[in-house]
Amino acid sequence: MRILGIDPGLRTLGWGVIDVDGSRMSHVANGSCPSTGETLGERLLSLFDQLSQVVRTYAPQAAAIEQTFVNKDGAGTLKLGQARGVALLVPAQAGLAIGEYAPNTVKKTVVGVGHADKVQVMHMVRLQLPGCNPAGPDAADALAIAICHAHHAFSRMRTAGAVA
Amino acid sequence: MRILGIDPGLRTLGWGVIDVDGSRMSHVANGSCPSTGETLGERLLSLFDQLSQVVRTYAPQAAAIEQTFVNKDGAGTLKLGQARGVALLVPAQAGLAIGEYAPNTVKKTVVGVGHADKVQVMHMVRLQLPGCNPAGPDAADALAIAICHAHHAFSRMRTAGAVA
Repeated sequence: MRILGIDPGLRTLGWGVIDVDGSRMSHVANGSCPSTGETLGERLLSLFDQLSQVVRTYAPQAAAIEQTFVNKDGAGTLKLGQARGVALLVPAQAGLAIGEYAPNTVKKTVVGVGHADKVQVMHMVRLQLPGCNPAGPDAADALAIAICHAHHAFSRMRTAGAVA
Repeated sequence: MRILGIDPGLRTLGWGVIDVDGSRMSHVANGSCPSTGETLGERLLSLFDQLSQVVRTYAPQAAAIEQTFVNKDGAGTLKLGQARGVALLVPAQAGLAIGEYAPNTVKKTVVGVGHADKVQVMHMVRLQLPGCNPAGPDAADALAIAICHAHHAFSRMRTAGAVA
């Protein structure tokens, strides 16, 4: 199974693609898409176009995204929400099921603790995906989300008896 | 000039298209798109597909959307943000400039006061666009946003000396 992890943001959208074969994972590609354009519409369009290109190029079979932590910064939540809407639209257009995971779940799965920092996430992503060099913290986060989805999908399959 | 007004929401997206010839406005079409699907991705995709169909059918030359009022309901802001991201993406894909107006500006332009209720907005939209029967309050709001954009675009043209 090929999984696309997405870390959405209005300025930069991180993405990472991994292949999963049973309990084995391997890195396929990752990147960081800066939004370009002067207006909000243009910036959202540039994120949409870049992420659509990633889906066309790597043809993932599943997608995963972080559940957004809603804080008191309403303007920030709105910006993130707009980028997240576009980020969810792209895999939905490709007919992919989209897993959503809380940030703590992602960190706990990848690093072992729920409050890991970005350096730890980057380190553990590199350890678990040999040869992988994340384009930046957001690409590392996107790979971590993909790894988290792989672990959870694998657990579900084991529970269901599909994997020995 | 043909203007598309959009009132985004995750459950229902209202839209309205008007034609503007100098200071004369006429109603073209309006509607209310319910989001369908079980997952967030599917719902966003259904809004995207329906609004894209509206743009293909009516070929507007400009678009307008309300500026979102950010309140303390973070979860609500996130939902609206996701729908708004998709609503902004569609006209951006068609290469349209997108005007953004505060809710009070829209009401003040259409009704004359900044704190008008939905019944007043519906009434004034019907008065200013003879023969128009809005599909619902969100479609009436979308038409009000289009009317607001027409007024502001017309003022700008007058200021610039393009209109006598």
